Amino acid sequence: MDEEGELFLQGLLAHRLILPSGVPGVFGRGAVFEDVLERFNALAGATAAPQVPELTCFPPVIDRTLLERVGYLGSFPNLCGCVQSFFGDERAARRLSDRVHAGEPYEDLLGATSVVLNPSACYPVYPTLSGTLPAGGRLITATNWVYRHEPSREPTRMQSYRVREFVRAGRPDEVMAWRDDWLERGTALLRGLGLPIRVDVASDPFFGRAGRFLAASQQEQKLKYELLVPVISAERPTAVGSFNVHHDKFGAMFDIRSDDGEVAHTACIGYGLERVTMALFRTHGFETGDWPTDVRARLWP
Amino acid sequence: MDEEGELFLQGLLAHRLILPSGVPGVFGRGAVFEDVLERFNALAGATAAPQVPELTCFPPVIDRTLLERVGYLGSFPNLCGCVQSFFGDERAARRLSDRVHAGEPYEDLLGATSVVLNPSACYPVYPTLSGTLPAGGRLITATNWVYRHEPSREPTRMQSYRVREFVRAGRPDEVMAWRDDWLERGTALLRGLGLPIRVDVASDPFFGRAGRFLAASQQEQKLKYELLVPVISAERPTAVGSFNVHHDKFGAMFDIRSDDGEVAHTACIGYGLERVTMALFRTHGFETGDWPTDVRARLWP
Repeated sequence: MDEEGELFLQGLLAHRLILPSGVPGVFGRGAVFEDVLERFNALAGATAAPQVPELTCFPPVIDRTLLERVGYLGSFPNLCGCVQSFFGDERAARRLSDRVHAGEPYEDLLGATSVVLNPSACYPVYPTLSGTLPAGGRLITATNWVYRHEPSREPTRMQSYRVREFVRAGRPDEVMAWRDDWLERGTALLRGLGLPIRVDVASDPFFGRAGRFLAASQQEQKLKYELLVPVISAERPTAVGSFNVHHDKFGAMFDIRSDDGEVAHTACIGYGLERVTMALFRTHGFETGDWPTDVRARLWP
Repeated sequence: MDEEGELFLQGLLAHRLILPSGVPGVFGRGAVFEDVLERFNALAGATAAPQVPELTCFPPVIDRTLLERVGYLGSFPNLCGCVQSFFGDERAARRLSDRVHAGEPYEDLLGATSVVLNPSACYPVYPTLSGTLPAGGRLITATNWVYRHEPSREPTRMQSYRVREFVRAGRPDEVMAWRDDWLERGTALLRGLGLPIRVDVASDPFFGRAGRFLAASQQEQKLKYELLVPVISAERPTAVGSFNVHHDKFGAMFDIRSDDGEVAHTACIGYGLERVTMALFRTHGFETGDWPTDVRARLWP
């Protein structure tokens, strides 16, 4: 992280917008930070009008077999968070306790649970869509905590953060039109808050050499767009929104069908809520009282 | 779970208040469930008046050394959730991918990260209190996701759920008076929503034989009170609120001092938000439109 990013991090800490936890990429959020985040989240929900998405909420952990099924451990093994616990008897528990006190590793005394941390806000939605969709398809929304194992001092590079997600399922033309429409809505939403947004084709951080081909193909097919805005660096702007089409990948995987009986297509869009919040502080300053009148009017109507 | 509990679970599912995920104790929440939960959470926040607690928010994962430091792995090893990830190269990644495809265990290819799932909403608050408190002490509040490794079909026995937490730190008499006052406020809050609350001395589920002594001592000293209400069983009511004093345990551990320079005392109270929500559906029925007028007036003012 260069000086610009370091200054921004120090500003966030000095204004108690974030609270350090001892682990990079894991921090508490202060009251003002939470207020801005929740108000932006409400505005993001309102962009759906006149449609009313079906609201759901999923916990930060998901079924381990879901992560395996969507191929996450093949594409992003380095980012996963698998959950272990202790299954032993009292003797083993004493051994565990001794190891902890001695500051020695103790993973070998733990075993895999049936859950993993959810790395993508949309994953737990797809299994709930199995079956035949109503005419016009479905639109689901959720605010979920996601986890990515990428410890970093960069405040925008969090291990654990919230995503406001919208998942659309339906016929191919419906879904593609929705993504294009919502990309415009998202851009307008963020520009309306004074953020200097740039839209760009993007790719996911697939692991390894094989991953580079997957990323290139994803870019070539324009499967992913991102909304970018400077947060810790003017030159390397940060993605605060992601707009993705999956064609029939999840439809086929979870047997989701359109009302015409064909395999449904899906798309999802997500706003990184902490990143949007940080972008607002970066753009308008650390004191919300000093923010431009029109931005304040939108967030505190 | 007996027939009463089974019927309640089926009712929650039939009304799409909760959505199954394939893993016991992990489920999606529907729109109506979330609405009730958020409205109760707002009421719980309002019980602090005329005081205004300092609002914070912590992610579902915390510093692993914090869990070790508070002794959680000694007292509740079976409930912990430690997070592993993949640290290997491309060759190891192919081995991981092959194991996943073959349906074989792959924990040995993962390694410990520096985070664990947070099992208690109050834990990440204490390190932020280190130093000398202002006169009158401090009162912090947060709504945090917590994890307990106890898979169960009982809908009230969740692996992952939200707690609305209040943490008080100050002089011993201030803290004890606060706990007693807020136990009354909490009881009034829940009874005001028509819940047939019973208050009882309680203990934590310490592991093993040694744990039984810890639990007995905790009960004898009345360190923990719970608010109980029937949810899945009339005979075995469910704890929906927990009111705890810790004397100087966390004050000494994290060097928290009162304004008089003495080691501060702490107390915490927490509402299990999903459990309170379920208690409301159990008590008033699955259709919120049919709930008593005064309960509706409090939740939807």
